[in-house]
Amino acid sequence: MPNPALLEAFETPGDAPFVIEHVSEEFTSVCPKTGHPDFGYVTLRYRPAPAASPAGKRGCVELKSLKLYYQSFRNEGIYYEAVTNTIRDHLVALLRPVWLQVITDWKGRGGIRSVVRADHGEVPPCYLGR
Amino acid sequence: MPNPALLEAFETPGDAPFVIEHVSEEFTSVCPKTGHPDFGYVTLRYRPAPAASPAGKRGCVELKSLKLYYQSFRNEGIYYEAVTNTIRDHLVALLRPVWLQVITDWKGRGGIRSVVRADHGEVPPCYLGR
Amino acid sequence: MPNPALLEAFETPGDAPFVIEHVSEEFTSVCPKTGHPDFGYVTLRYRPAPAASPAGKRGCVELKSLKLYYQSFRNEGIYYEAVTNTIRDHLVALLRPVWLQVITDWKGRGGIRSVVRADHGEVPPCYLGR
Amino acid sequence: MPNPALLEAFETPGDAPFVIEHVSEEFTSVCPKTGHPDFGYVTLRYRPAPAASPAGKRGCVELKSLKLYYQSFRNEGIYYEAVTNTIRDHLVALLRPVWLQVITDWKGRGGIRSVVRADHGEVPPCYLGR
Amino acid sequence: MPNPALLEAFETPGDAPFVIEHVSEEFTSVCPKTGHPDFGYVTLRYRPAPAASPAGKRGCVELKSLKLYYQSFRNEGIYYEAVTNTIRDHLVALLRPVWLQVITDWKGRGGIRSVVRADHGEVPPCYLGR
Amino acid sequence: MPNPALLEAFETPGDAPFVIEHVSEEFTSVCPKTGHPDFGYVTLRYRPAPAASPAGKRGCVELKSLKLYYQSFRNEGIYYEAVTNTIRDHLVALLRPVWLQVITDWKGRGGIRSVVRADHGEVPPCYLGR
Amino acid sequence: MPNPALLEAFETPGDAPFVIEHVSEEFTSVCPKTGHPDFGYVTLRYRPAPAASPAGKRGCVELKSLKLYYQSFRNEGIYYEAVTNTIRDHLVALLRPVWLQVITDWKGRGGIRSVVRADHGEVPPCYLGR
Amino acid sequence: MPNPALLEAFETPGDAPFVIEHVSEEFTSVCPKTGHPDFGYVTLRYRPAPAASPAGKRGCVELKSLKLYYQSFRNEGIYYEAVTNTIRDHLVALLRPVWLQVITDWKGRGGIRSVVRADHGEVPPCYLGR
Amino acid sequence: MPNPALLEAFETPGDAPFVIEHVSEEFTSVCPKTGHPDFGYVTLRYRPAPAASPAGKRGCVELKSLKLYYQSFRNEGIYYEAVTNTIRDHLVALLRPVWLQVITDWKGRGGIRSVVRADHGEVPPCYLGR
Amino acid sequence: MPNPALLEAFETPGDAPFVIEHVSEEFTSVCPKTGHPDFGYVTLRYRPAPAASPAGKRGCVELKSLKLYYQSFRNEGIYYEAVTNTIRDHLVALLRPVWLQVITDWKGRGGIRSVVRADHGEVPPCYLGR
Repeated sequence: MPNPALLEAFETPGDAPFVIEHVSEEFTSVCPKTGHPDFGYVTLRYRPAPAASPAGKRGCVELKSLKLYYQSFRNEGIYYEAVTNTIRDHLVALLRPVWLQVITDWKGRGGIRSVVRADHGEVPPCYLGR
Repeated sequence: MPNPALLEAFETPGDAPFVIEHVSEEFTSVCPKTGHPDFGYVTLRYRPAPAASPAGKRGCVELKSLKLYYQSFRNEGIYYEAVTNTIRDHLVALLRPVWLQVITDWKGRGGIRSVVRADHGEVPPCYLGR
Repeated sequence: MPNPALLEAFETPGDAPFVIEHVSEEFTSVCPKTGHPDFGYVTLRYRPAPAASPAGKRGCVELKSLKLYYQSFRNEGIYYEAVTNTIRDHLVALLRPVWLQVITDWKGRGGIRSVVRADHGEVPPCYLGR
Repeated sequence: MPNPALLEAFETPGDAPFVIEHVSEEFTSVCPKTGHPDFGYVTLRYRPAPAASPAGKRGCVELKSLKLYYQSFRNEGIYYEAVTNTIRDHLVALLRPVWLQVITDWKGRGGIRSVVRADHGEVPPCYLGR
Repeated sequence: MPNPALLEAFETPGDAPFVIEHVSEEFTSVCPKTGHPDFGYVTLRYRPAPAASPAGKRGCVELKSLKLYYQSFRNEGIYYEAVTNTIRDHLVALLRPVWLQVITDWKGRGGIRSVVRADHGEVPPCYLGR
Repeated sequence: MPNPALLEAFETPGDAPFVIEHVSEEFTSVCPKTGHPDFGYVTLRYRPAPAASPAGKRGCVELKSLKLYYQSFRNEGIYYEAVTNTIRDHLVALLRPVWLQVITDWKGRGGIRSVVRADHGEVPPCYLGR
Repeated sequence: MPNPALLEAFETPGDAPFVIEHVSEEFTSVCPKTGHPDFGYVTLRYRPAPAASPAGKRGCVELKSLKLYYQSFRNEGIYYEAVTNTIRDHLVALLRPVWLQVITDWKGRGGIRSVVRADHGEVPPCYLGR
Repeated sequence: MPNPALLEAFETPGDAPFVIEHVSEEFTSVCPKTGHPDFGYVTLRYRPAPAASPAGKRGCVELKSLKLYYQSFRNEGIYYEAVTNTIRDHLVALLRPVWLQVITDWKGRGGIRSVVRADHGEVPPCYLGR
Repeated sequence: MPNPALLEAFETPGDAPFVIEHVSEEFTSVCPKTGHPDFGYVTLRYRPAPAASPAGKRGCVELKSLKLYYQSFRNEGIYYEAVTNTIRDHLVALLRPVWLQVITDWKGRGGIRSVVRADHGEVPPCYLGR
Repeated sequence: MPNPALLEAFETPGDAPFVIEHVSEEFTSVCPKTGHPDFGYVTLRYRPAPAASPAGKRGCVELKSLKLYYQSFRNEGIYYEAVTNTIRDHLVALLRPVWLQVITDWKGRGGIRSVVRADHGEVPPCYLGR
């Protein structure tokens, strides 16, 4: 079951703007309709809240915790769209980033490949559409 | 015969903006002039109407129904331009999306490869031209 | 001799905006200086005049006629720049498009590859530079 | 229905050994089990019987007739293996080649891509396995 | 748990020699040491026993059953080498092929990508080493 | 008209064995049936007769003369097979090489790409099939 | 230990605007948590201060000194984010550029590849997001 | 020695806007510090002054003269930055273009690849950053 | 210092022949002449001794121990050739394989890329030369 | 002028068979006919004489000396074939290898790319033809 409690954050190292991107090529969940496994790539991009932001600020996601969190979808029956929105919502709640973007890119089913993109905040134009 | 009755929609899961892209690499129709088959890729991109939109709102296209709909062009004599415009019009009628884009990319005829792109609504700049 | 009389047009199917791209990978003409053949790719992109535009409106170029028109350059001694401008001018005269773009991409001569791009009307930014 | 009567041959031009390869990227048939279309590439390679071979000799397959023959599978319910063996048998009967090879390379079904290779006669080692 | 009972075979269609290759890009199992999932590609190649072979002969593996069989490794803790040998042994027992080859190609762990290749019978030289 | 008188040879520089390969990406001729131009790549490979071979020995083809010779096919109506065999025969007559190979690789017609390979003498196995 | 004293600058040659990009494919540091080495690519882009800028102006980084500076991270235990921010800060202090950008692109850990991008000043839009 | 006297221009053929790009993959100069040769690609892009521009207008660079001009750097000891700025300045002086851009892309030294980009006038955004 | 004591082996799982390949893309050592770091890929291929081989038999190298062993070269001043021969000798001593092959593929120095290949026993032809 | 005195050798480190390959992507010489520069890649492969071979034995070529030797062709007017044979002869004289191979791969002239391959001794089949 997707488990946001697995996610850990650490404080942003400094206030200068920067962007972090993590691409997982080893994501799998299960189609809720057919019970067959789905395989995809998950791209996470975000600009962390600066270190100097007010109390309650968050920061950057710890890499190993992200991997374990993704693994918690392994036997979950869940649609492409829900995977994408769920990851975005969990990470936004954790990190309170300036902006954040999740893209899932799925291997074909029935000859059709699919991509779902979900944004939070003002994602810069250079990251839209890819 | 292209059959929009094959298409099914489901309600958009939530109000946060997101974009869906489906790429079919297994599309074929028939040239109405020569009777020879045409082969192409069909890319569909759209931003679904949010879940909270008023009555009569639609949502997302169901993937298997999209595949069956595409198959209904198999023995239809129809030009590239008409394929593209027809798919756009059928899906706009079904989904009432914020915006929607259909791109057909055809294997060569007489040494000339062709691409046709048709938009509905305000397609973001990042999706234009590709 | 480049022969615009070979070109045929058909009426734009509808008023919704769309874009057509034809890429020919089999273009050859002759260098007027050395008499040696030149080989290149020709990309044509345009947005056709809508069906509902006033009398005298044109539309879309017929694909086979485009191929024969390109073949009429086969034994013509003509520079890269003139090929590009000539194709643009002939097609603009034929189609009266909203905008139109011709790009010729030539195999190397003396270790230098060349590209020439010629526009008509307001080509959208997404098509500039490629 | 696969129709070998569509195939035409012409006499081999000379006795010096040579090899011919035709790759069709536009092959489609129908899965006899599910009724869904299959898409694949078909590669045909052969060494034609030499011109000086005895009476009853055949030769090379005419390219346009090969295309029409492939199109005759379009609405046929037939397995990958049968497509491959059928093409080989029809062409061997037509051409009486020194050797002949048919390879079909199919787009994925259920996450699995498939290739079927069928030989006739002594196919040289360099053509085995690809 | 890897379940060979999921596998189904059908009789080889004819006696002429041919080769079948199935490439699955959606294989996952679990590392028995760390409990983390492993992801890989599985290539199966074989020459089926001819139709005319003696009683007790087998034939070709049915594609959907192969997919379900691969899925049965999903939550199994098992090493790369054992995955490869297990698949080979199960399929050899099912098909009694002339020869058979299984190649597993694994995504990196600790910066090291791995490939394991296991053969049965006289695999032709053209299939060795790739 | 294909004109072998355009070809020039120079004496092989030494007796140590070596192999020469010239790949032309700018070959065009005309289909004798349809009158439409054909475009292809021509690969020539050979081992020249050693410098110390007896009187009447030939050697290596001069590169610029080869280019002009290829250009002499530009407006010739000639089939793929005849192009390949003609080039081989003209060059064998000129060079008297130890072995020689001509491969023509043609852009698609009707969705089918073609390759023709013609050998003279004992072409080493490493050059067969590609 | 990352050693900015290894860096050397030279005066910008002229006042016309230009951009310099250096891509190092041979960067390695050590993970402070696990002690295992990390490997990545480091891209540095900047527009140097013009030659005519006031006293105290700097200029361009000398290439060999940049290489030695990167080598000083070899046995340093340091996170991806700190590597990126440290390089940016050291180079900004040295060069006082109009703008500067550092991108680090890391090989995968646990199936996740990572990219970190850090900017200084007004980086032009064309360099954002890649 | 870089010799701008080798460059020749011809008048722009017409007033319609177009863009010319020449990519040389055969550029070499010498490092003034080490005496070792440097190898790179040089991309030149510009929009020529229109034919109807006032007296003193220039136009397009002649391709063979550009090749000879590039060859004049062959044994020159000169830095990457100076190569790039020199080419831009010589061509701007010759052509008086609406805008012009020179990009030099150098093979690696010490594990670091470098790119230098120099602009003149208002280079359109689509050409920045690549 | 290269430390073979870091290497661990486990018994070959079974007697059927199979081949294992491990590709490390994260290898670095130091040039003994210049003190600069070298970066390369290391490919290890071998056929393990069968499980049923006599006492004293070995087996397969454990993957994590291989990674740690490679890391022990990190600060060693050692030539390409010695790296390759050392790895081969250490692994042969550990595993007593039927055959074993080590290939090191190094990033360029002074514009020259290098590959060193070292074999033990009868490496099958399919693995030679790549 | 090609200067073999620049080449240096060092003794083969051990007697176990191994193969060394050096690929230079930065080779240039001058066409003796036109005076224009030629650019190519030079691949050198050899198996060095074993350390235990008799007096007068040689060994491996030192990498930096190879680079300087290649640079000595920079302003030499020399044909492709002569470059290839000269390098082979100089290195055979220096190294007395078990076998040695030189391949030169030249950028196009007049639309034709060329490759020249020269061998010494019994080059293993796996290295022929590439």
